[in-house]
Amino acid sequence: MSELTGNNLIGNQAASNGETYQAINPQTGSSIGPDFYSATEQDIDSAFQKAQEASEAYRSLAPEARAEFLEAIAEEIGALGDALLERANEETALPMPRLTGERGRTVGQIRMFAQIVREGSWVEASIDTAIPDREPLPKPDVRRMLIPLGPVAVFGASNFPLAFSVAGGDTASALAAGCPVVVKAHPAHPGTSEFVGQAIVKAAQRTGMPEGVFSLVHGPSPKVGEAMVKHPHCQAVAFTGSLGGGRALFDLASQRPNPIPVYAEMGSINPVFFLPGALAENAGSLAEGILGSVTLGVGQFCTNPGLIVGLEDGGFPELVEALGPAFKGAACGTMLHAGIQKAYEASLKTVQSVSGVEVIGQSEQAAESDKTQVQAVGLSTDAKTFLENSQLSDEVFGPSTLAVRCQSKEEILQIASNLEGHLTATIHGTEADLEEFKDLIAVLETKVGRLLIGGFPTGVEVCASMQHGGPYPAASDSRSTSVGGAAITRFARPIAYQNFPASQLPAELQDDNPRGIWRLVDGERTR
Amino acid sequence: MSELTGNNLIGNQAASNGETYQAINPQTGSSIGPDFYSATEQDIDSAFQKAQEASEAYRSLAPEARAEFLEAIAEEIGALGDALLERANEETALPMPRLTGERGRTVGQIRMFAQIVREGSWVEASIDTAIPDREPLPKPDVRRMLIPLGPVAVFGASNFPLAFSVAGGDTASALAAGCPVVVKAHPAHPGTSEFVGQAIVKAAQRTGMPEGVFSLVHGPSPKVGEAMVKHPHCQAVAFTGSLGGGRALFDLASQRPNPIPVYAEMGSINPVFFLPGALAENAGSLAEGILGSVTLGVGQFCTNPGLIVGLEDGGFPELVEALGPAFKGAACGTMLHAGIQKAYEASLKTVQSVSGVEVIGQSEQAAESDKTQVQAVGLSTDAKTFLENSQLSDEVFGPSTLAVRCQSKEEILQIASNLEGHLTATIHGTEADLEEFKDLIAVLETKVGRLLIGGFPTGVEVCASMQHGGPYPAASDSRSTSVGGAAITRFARPIAYQNFPASQLPAELQDDNPRGIWRLVDGERTR
Repeated sequence: MSELTGNNLIGNQAASNGETYQAINPQTGSSIGPDFYSATEQDIDSAFQKAQEASEAYRSLAPEARAEFLEAIAEEIGALGDALLERANEETALPMPRLTGERGRTVGQIRMFAQIVREGSWVEASIDTAIPDREPLPKPDVRRMLIPLGPVAVFGASNFPLAFSVAGGDTASALAAGCPVVVKAHPAHPGTSEFVGQAIVKAAQRTGMPEGVFSLVHGPSPKVGEAMVKHPHCQAVAFTGSLGGGRALFDLASQRPNPIPVYAEMGSINPVFFLPGALAENAGSLAEGILGSVTLGVGQFCTNPGLIVGLEDGGFPELVEALGPAFKGAACGTMLHAGIQKAYEASLKTVQSVSGVEVIGQSEQAAESDKTQVQAVGLSTDAKTFLENSQLSDEVFGPSTLAVRCQSKEEILQIASNLEGHLTATIHGTEADLEEFKDLIAVLETKVGRLLIGGFPTGVEVCASMQHGGPYPAASDSRSTSVGGAAITRFARPIAYQNFPASQLPAELQDDNPRGIWRLVDGERTR
Repeated sequence: MSELTGNNLIGNQAASNGETYQAINPQTGSSIGPDFYSATEQDIDSAFQKAQEASEAYRSLAPEARAEFLEAIAEEIGALGDALLERANEETALPMPRLTGERGRTVGQIRMFAQIVREGSWVEASIDTAIPDREPLPKPDVRRMLIPLGPVAVFGASNFPLAFSVAGGDTASALAAGCPVVVKAHPAHPGTSEFVGQAIVKAAQRTGMPEGVFSLVHGPSPKVGEAMVKHPHCQAVAFTGSLGGGRALFDLASQRPNPIPVYAEMGSINPVFFLPGALAENAGSLAEGILGSVTLGVGQFCTNPGLIVGLEDGGFPELVEALGPAFKGAACGTMLHAGIQKAYEASLKTVQSVSGVEVIGQSEQAAESDKTQVQAVGLSTDAKTFLENSQLSDEVFGPSTLAVRCQSKEEILQIASNLEGHLTATIHGTEADLEEFKDLIAVLETKVGRLLIGGFPTGVEVCASMQHGGPYPAASDSRSTSVGGAAITRFARPIAYQNFPASQLPAELQDDNPRGIWRLVDGERTR
């Protein structure tokens, strides 16, 4: 069994040069050992120097070798056993069944990327063969495919200590694309991060990867992340977290002498629209469904539905009324860390201070602040108040939602049109509702990355067709997804080879297609 | 036959509110009528308001309607006849045969995008069907495709008055993707721009497009472009031009409250490496080839080879020697406008002021400055001087190249490793050369968007496999191309539809695939 050291993992070297800090158990407020060493500027420089040195060897590996590395990571995470989950539970207060599920998702998506690399068509190979006798000019032979960008900085998220952290979707997709990765551990779960980091280092050594393909750095100070994003060898950034944090990294990356892409998945209020037909059919189960989605994981999901909208005379007041006792009966929950707890309480205060906003229900159980607990809170207002107070559109990260009662379809459309970018929007409607509200669907398409009919936005399926992103501020780059197979293309760019002799072409672009991948050849898709 | 009015074309309305300016014939230095009205802030606001209003109707059109609009544009440009080419010749001094060819390329690429839209697979449709009884959780039905970003600001380039201007590749690909376009005419060829703008307006009216799908604004002041990029309805920017201009737009776009993507294709010196075997076989024709590529279009191509590199003892000095008389015999050429002429002369002065740089040959013909003429200039230095003087790596936009003599393969690799991002790099080498310099290929792959073996980088084939872009500063977004079919995806983003009833799904994602497009269905590529 591995033990925690508190070290930064700079390639295969441990680094313990900086100041130290400890994790805190949010359920008790007490520190947990060991001491973790913040990465110094020199540690970060070493990590990116090693990543850069590893870059050429790593991207040149046969896809099979890269796939085996990914699968070895999944195995080594499994081999950590319950110690990983127990540490994660101590550091995040997330319950063991949730963490068990999250580990399953994490190794599942690593294996999915291994399969994508092995299959190989993700490089979008395209071949236009020469026409030497074309008039007035000969047509050259041009062949195009995606190649990796180079070293990537990944920032672990607080709310998914496994699936969006050290070996989460960002790391897995960047490694799959052929990019070395330097991860910044989230300071709320450094022990969980080190365990997973050790697993990756072990997998890299076991499968003969070049040193520097992976590094893990620690540190509660924003300076650590800043130094990563500004490092000349850093070629892309992936982040999941707050709007403030993501925007700061985006700004730093954009102001570099050579700007680099930033994939920041940030805030979202994930509006849910309840149309009259659906409410007439299902009011009871819908109230239960909302409460479940709002309070899942103490509301700490980026897909948490923070806004629900319906018509005054379309059964919505009854739904809101049913939510009152539901919220009152909701248990308090321990949040990930005190910072999130304070932010939740401050955001709630801002919302409640708006005249015209009322509480429809709130956990009757008292929240024990020293256990980092918070209450679930349901709020309500009318469309006019909502539209006149822009602060009501800000994300409240936690187990709360705001019900907005509209007088008319026009008010619903106005709310939809005024939305900023979000990860998701959901409509509950019968076929007849949807026909009547076709224009609502059209407006929401321009606002979100994922549009649901029925159900709730929490729970993000990891599959080829998933889109987890959306117009700003849901994400800094709406053209990308941070969940699902398509996430791999974030870390690659196209290159064209013109008039290359067969001997120098990458396998993906050779005439006889030795990789057996899907390609566009002279306009025809073929394998 | 159309006549020039000097008006901004704001949707279907003419706007003549601002200050006026005139085009200048670079061959004479004299102004040409009519007066062109600079767009006011209100004109720009109107253009984007109309674009936004047109957005929903335009993106909802059947692909066939969009394809017919594009084809109508191609027809209307053809219908402008020689008046278009004559005006372009007056405004740019580019010769008629070149302009005739450029018109052919322009309408050819518009028709290519029409075909791409009609065929439809560019939307990257992907379907994961539901598994309702999956344990522990049911799998939802998730379907994903690309949808248009919304209104796009396009900046016409000075050096391609047709193919990279009002109806150039950026406009064609944005309209093809389903985005309304507001074009900023390049102030060096406003008349050419208005002619083409009129053609687009006519095509839009003839095919029943929503008003605002296209607008054209004029103005020599940077304020016009700034107002476009900062407009809240602007969702993406496409630009071809200088590093300074492109970076300024990128910075503005990144600093918006909601940042938007900028596709700026900027400077490039397009290094050409001459390896010993190739020189032994072909020295004579290679010298001719370089001169032709360097002086083509008075050197005013972003793919102009501004740097040539070879070994002291590998036949390179002989090549450089042969270039001396070649440059001496090269005719002077009229540049696009006085600004480019002055910049060329200033850049040359900077290069020539570096100790260790010598002129190997220069047009013997005197340049007539009032005809905006410049001389072709060949320069030479050694690797040490080149590596020690970073200003020698800056683009000199015009008919000039710098030959760098290396003592060793290591020096060649050092030069390659020190390169910033470029659109292209070229290697002249035999099979044996390429085996020996495999590491040069590997380094160059990380530096450019297109890598050629043999030939010259000028001349960019418009095809599916073309990549015209590259790492910064060649382009602001190395993940995109501004030439070829893949350019369409720059103006789209993915959206996922979850558990949508068949009646509400876009045609591209319906079960029976009524569009007959290629899709990824439960992991299988199928049509």
